[in-house]
Amino acid sequence: MLVRHQPLRLLGILLCALVVATGPAAAEDGLAAARKFRQANEASILKDFAELLSIPNVASDSENIVRNAELIRGRLEQRGVTAELWTLPGAPPVVFGALDAPDAERTLGIYVHYDGQPVDLDKWDQPPWSPTLYTAAIEAGGRPRPWPRPGEAIDPEWRIYGRSSGDDKAPLAAIFAALDALKAAGLKPTSNLRFLFEGEEEAGSDHLEEYLRQHRKELEVDVWLICDGPVHQSRRPQLVFGVRGYTGLDITVFGATRYLHSGHYGNWAPNPAHLLARLLASMRDDEGKVLVEGFYDDTAPIGEAEREAMATLPDFDDDLRRELGLAATEAGNAPLAERLLIPSLNIRGLESAAVGAEARNVIPTEATASIDIRLAKGDDPVKMLDRVEDHIRGQGYHIVRDDPDMALRLEHPKIARVSRREGYPAARTGMDLAIVGDIIAAAERAADGPLVLPPTMGGSLPLYLFTELLAAPVVIVPIANHDDNQHAPNENLRLANLWYGIDLMTSLLTLPSPGNPAQSAH
Amino acid sequence: MLVRHQPLRLLGILLCALVVATGPAAAEDGLAAARKFRQANEASILKDFAELLSIPNVASDSENIVRNAELIRGRLEQRGVTAELWTLPGAPPVVFGALDAPDAERTLGIYVHYDGQPVDLDKWDQPPWSPTLYTAAIEAGGRPRPWPRPGEAIDPEWRIYGRSSGDDKAPLAAIFAALDALKAAGLKPTSNLRFLFEGEEEAGSDHLEEYLRQHRKELEVDVWLICDGPVHQSRRPQLVFGVRGYTGLDITVFGATRYLHSGHYGNWAPNPAHLLARLLASMRDDEGKVLVEGFYDDTAPIGEAEREAMATLPDFDDDLRRELGLAATEAGNAPLAERLLIPSLNIRGLESAAVGAEARNVIPTEATASIDIRLAKGDDPVKMLDRVEDHIRGQGYHIVRDDPDMALRLEHPKIARVSRREGYPAARTGMDLAIVGDIIAAAERAADGPLVLPPTMGGSLPLYLFTELLAAPVVIVPIANHDDNQHAPNENLRLANLWYGIDLMTSLLTLPSPGNPAQSAH
Repeated sequence: MLVRHQPLRLLGILLCALVVATGPAAAEDGLAAARKFRQANEASILKDFAELLSIPNVASDSENIVRNAELIRGRLEQRGVTAELWTLPGAPPVVFGALDAPDAERTLGIYVHYDGQPVDLDKWDQPPWSPTLYTAAIEAGGRPRPWPRPGEAIDPEWRIYGRSSGDDKAPLAAIFAALDALKAAGLKPTSNLRFLFEGEEEAGSDHLEEYLRQHRKELEVDVWLICDGPVHQSRRPQLVFGVRGYTGLDITVFGATRYLHSGHYGNWAPNPAHLLARLLASMRDDEGKVLVEGFYDDTAPIGEAEREAMATLPDFDDDLRRELGLAATEAGNAPLAERLLIPSLNIRGLESAAVGAEARNVIPTEATASIDIRLAKGDDPVKMLDRVEDHIRGQGYHIVRDDPDMALRLEHPKIARVSRREGYPAARTGMDLAIVGDIIAAAERAADGPLVLPPTMGGSLPLYLFTELLAAPVVIVPIANHDDNQHAPNENLRLANLWYGIDLMTSLLTLPSPGNPAQSAH
Repeated sequence: MLVRHQPLRLLGILLCALVVATGPAAAEDGLAAARKFRQANEASILKDFAELLSIPNVASDSENIVRNAELIRGRLEQRGVTAELWTLPGAPPVVFGALDAPDAERTLGIYVHYDGQPVDLDKWDQPPWSPTLYTAAIEAGGRPRPWPRPGEAIDPEWRIYGRSSGDDKAPLAAIFAALDALKAAGLKPTSNLRFLFEGEEEAGSDHLEEYLRQHRKELEVDVWLICDGPVHQSRRPQLVFGVRGYTGLDITVFGATRYLHSGHYGNWAPNPAHLLARLLASMRDDEGKVLVEGFYDDTAPIGEAEREAMATLPDFDDDLRRELGLAATEAGNAPLAERLLIPSLNIRGLESAAVGAEARNVIPTEATASIDIRLAKGDDPVKMLDRVEDHIRGQGYHIVRDDPDMALRLEHPKIARVSRREGYPAARTGMDLAIVGDIIAAAERAADGPLVLPPTMGGSLPLYLFTELLAAPVVIVPIANHDDNQHAPNENLRLANLWYGIDLMTSLLTLPSPGNPAQSAH
């Protein structure tokens, strides 16, 4: 949509028009092959996906994370891809695969991560690594149902529940099915392919930079397709051209060295839960505006291009609010897409002593908040944390890195232990590159219609490594439904999104060559 | 101390002087008997106490709470007390015991509770119901050691760790040993005795009123000795003449109906942890002053009598701060004793999503604070909760009693689910009653010196039931050390306090008769 309607995207429009006008035979053959193959093999595609989802995949679970990597390497090899595991001490392996196409003029990099977020076991309706098919979303009354027999009619509104069904094993299932579909139709990819499947994205990608440095040579591509994140909340497919950066911190404030009876000492001894509440309250107003001095200073202003792009996005905020049970949004109902272009400060967890049945009449000894900070273009992660720490000091706190000893406690009335998390900046790709135009056109074919093309996604990925270290543009290629409970209990994937993913991957694997838009894939 | 130095306590002073002048033979015999017996039987007293502490005693654990009651009844009966269990449907039993003394002119009521607070299993250094002897407080480097053999030297600074070692099984151990000591010396109590041992004090004493109503006749006494709470922080024994009232509430505020990815939705969807922090911050300032309108309106002003009593209390606040690792107190360092005479609002627990290793990058769906409110003389529990609710409404919240449904969520931007806890008012006994003077004198003999006599304790007990329903004065008779981790993990009792408790109970059981201060106990 953006490419079709904006004057400054003229080159993109011309390229797309050219591709359409000259009839991209391979691409259309590929897409038709994908649909035919999928319709004939839905049950076995789901079965293979369920097998992949049944292996626990928290990055710190070394034994199981390797089992995931081995299974994925095997599946690549079965499909003719040269595949290997890269390893680093203490890190989950990277699954790397290479498949060269005859006469290819382009190389596509395809990134997926196969690890998932940790789980709160008791908040899942079924075990997170026992993938279960439901007739609809659980919130919409969906019920578990048996896996379909081959040939049985399948409702695309059914959902697979299981950790990483959406984030981020769905693209793996789509890639495997796409390669199978091409083979079944006697077709081949039109670009050289480089698969890079990471195993610790949800744990912070601590080793990704080292992997990329060591293997820079094997990772020379023309564009990275970053297969992660959900499609638009309107359910319309999207491509995205940037990500937010990420950092965060944990703050613990202290009271007495032991729990105190709230009757004998209440009103006299400081209560760390109250102190923390007041500290957090000072950081952000009720509308989500961050009150930390300088928090917005380095953020790139929202430019003309972004405003034009956002103007073409579906106005979905009200529907989304209704779906989520929200009567009003923060920041005076500013649109979601706009809110993603400025940095955020979010309390992701809060704890002091206990609530509910375990609550007792005590003054807690400490109170902790875990905070994440999303960065927009221009924000530096270290500077942002420095600003938050300055704010904490400004509220009268002495900042420490370890638990305070008795001498420190007696010296400072207010002590905050601050743990800074490593962060990384945001990244953004220009939407007027030729290859970006080709990718948009391929995705539009898979989607049977116009895409949503936001300038950035809300989530964070260390894409600066791809754009800066590997010096290649990135395009984010999401597959999962927006309501997939990503990062949360009851993560799921809507089957219609998996079917779209297979179409999309096939369409991208059969991208027309720039020198020969009508190139045959044979 | 208070009695000795204040003109308005003249009657008390005269009575005490009379008792001392006429030589209370029974009392002194009793105390001497207690000390002799205890020194000869320390190991077996500890062994019996450990057996009592080894039965889990959370009020909701019906099976074990009855095991506690049966053991205690058996121990009373072994000592010649007529004992029985009173029961009510769904309530822990009350252990009632009666022992009449020949020619007694007074009846003493003795209240203890045998249930304990729930436990955080993983925060204890040993299982809470596996009583363990330590060479000192754990914080002071105490190490576990074997239970002593009979005759082995015992350091009074040793501590017994276990749930309810201080709160509130210690008085039971003291009573059993006191009865044994009298018997061993051929002595008898000088007053009729009525034992009332409750089993659900820590769960809110929901059935105490009904028990007292049904058994009002058996519970006619001249004074209630309420054996609960710790001695003064200076370690000096104390008697206390009042308690704070209690009420409380839980507040839950809401965000979206499901966890949201903090990247995709952060800055746009409301964050309930932030909202709760701001709500709590609005309720209390950094010095502990409650900002809820009218919170202090009904509180009885601190009178001359209280000010005089407090002036005689040891100035222990600075020592206490050093012990607890506190650099400064709330309310501009106002003394603890004074802070107990005004109502308090205390966050006892805080929770939203997760912190630490389980934290994830989400916007939580809800955030909860559990709050207790301690009441001073004059405060009405229902009115206090009403005021807090008015404050919550004043911050823009719609208050509900159950989880909000979708229609409510879409209607109200800010929703708070408030659960009110049942409460009760404060109680206070006049310190110039004759029997109060006798009790002070008996306790001073056991303490070998002056007592601390605060007008109120910080803790809450439903003593208004005794003073109003049973129409008898109450005196609180604490035994446990102030640093006993009451209500918290690693609850413990210092042996010196148990020894004092035995002396104290023997001294009280042999209180001189008002008509015959020199009465022999034979």
